[in-house]
Amino acid sequence: MTFLKQDWLARFDGLADLPEDLREELVKGSRLVHYAAGEQIFQPGDSGDNLLMLVQGTVRVQQKSETGREVSLYRVHAGDSCVMTTACMLAYEDYSADGVAETDVEALAISRVTFDSLVARSPLFRQMVFRAFSRRITDLLTLIDDIVFQRLDVRLAARLLELAGTDDTVHATHQVLANELGTAREVISRTLADFQRRGWVEQSRGAVKITGRAGLERMARSAG
Amino acid sequence: MTFLKQDWLARFDGLADLPEDLREELVKGSRLVHYAAGEQIFQPGDSGDNLLMLVQGTVRVQQKSETGREVSLYRVHAGDSCVMTTACMLAYEDYSADGVAETDVEALAISRVTFDSLVARSPLFRQMVFRAFSRRITDLLTLIDDIVFQRLDVRLAARLLELAGTDDTVHATHQVLANELGTAREVISRTLADFQRRGWVEQSRGAVKITGRAGLERMARSAG
Repeated sequence: MTFLKQDWLARFDGLADLPEDLREELVKGSRLVHYAAGEQIFQPGDSGDNLLMLVQGTVRVQQKSETGREVSLYRVHAGDSCVMTTACMLAYEDYSADGVAETDVEALAISRVTFDSLVARSPLFRQMVFRAFSRRITDLLTLIDDIVFQRLDVRLAARLLELAGTDDTVHATHQVLANELGTAREVISRTLADFQRRGWVEQSRGAVKITGRAGLERMARSAG
Repeated sequence: MTFLKQDWLARFDGLADLPEDLREELVKGSRLVHYAAGEQIFQPGDSGDNLLMLVQGTVRVQQKSETGREVSLYRVHAGDSCVMTTACMLAYEDYSADGVAETDVEALAISRVTFDSLVARSPLFRQMVFRAFSRRITDLLTLIDDIVFQRLDVRLAARLLELAGTDDTVHATHQVLANELGTAREVISRTLADFQRRGWVEQSRGAVKITGRAGLERMARSAG
């Protein structure tokens, strides 16, 4: 078990280089947790007693408005140089964000005591934590930039290409796509109808099939 | 000088409670810096060798798009429990944000070495730093929520009330108000024309005078 955990540490940039005693401390002060796809991992009001590092899977971090509308903020992936939900788990402030397992997820849950001790003792660990915070802030700045400055048709084209599976199809309703891009459902419907007229997509219930990839790619590359 | 600096530390939540030796280290490893109103304090590409704590004044943190459009992200105020530009100064990632002195600004510039040493040695200092990060993330989440979910007329009404000086006047062009709210100038012009028709404001060159505060307040309170 301990051996296995040490193995996982190697997936996180910097952690593999921790001195042996700190690695031991990290392994002892953490446990492996699992979430099924669709499961809520954290939500507003959670005290965040553990810090999660993603070993496997993807977590979508999103924000809900008081009226129940949603916007996707960013995704946390496994294997990133440092994939932590730190920013939201270190809930000194009341976050309005929540995190949902987008796939089956395996994560290392580090207790707050261990986290604090490692931040105090290891410059490497500190650097990793601050990097994680910085990356999330950069993600949010990018999202704000997208929402404020980029044309919606450009963003939708890029997102369809990103979300399409091997069957060239995006399995998502207009409402889900609206949440992804932080806009209204009607705006998505109107834009998709336009894409369909151009022969770039074909729509069916809960799915969008890409039929003209070149056109979508041109649109995704055009300046917002 | 040292005595004076110690005095300033009292303005920051938590710092006054630091043990004497850490306070000494903080004072020795920092210097007082001044910026005139309008001066650029940090910008994309800065390596951020110092961490700033605001003693006096206000810093506006904003983001510029590639096409030169701007959006205000948040303001850093003096006297907040912990007002640091940490998030942007700890530039492990390439930020696209920049900070401008909105008033004359006095700040404590803490060297990176001192910062790192204090993070390692003091749980109080660590808590303050993580709180600062969390607050900025919360600010960004709030901004995203506003942009995505709130009606622009509601946001503009609230912002006019917030920015109005003692003369009940907001000294800002339509473009500046557009940057404040992350929208286009034409949208601001159209909404202000509507407010003027309702008798809530009177417009003149580069200024908006509030003439119907009750109406604006009602609008600002209405649900987005």
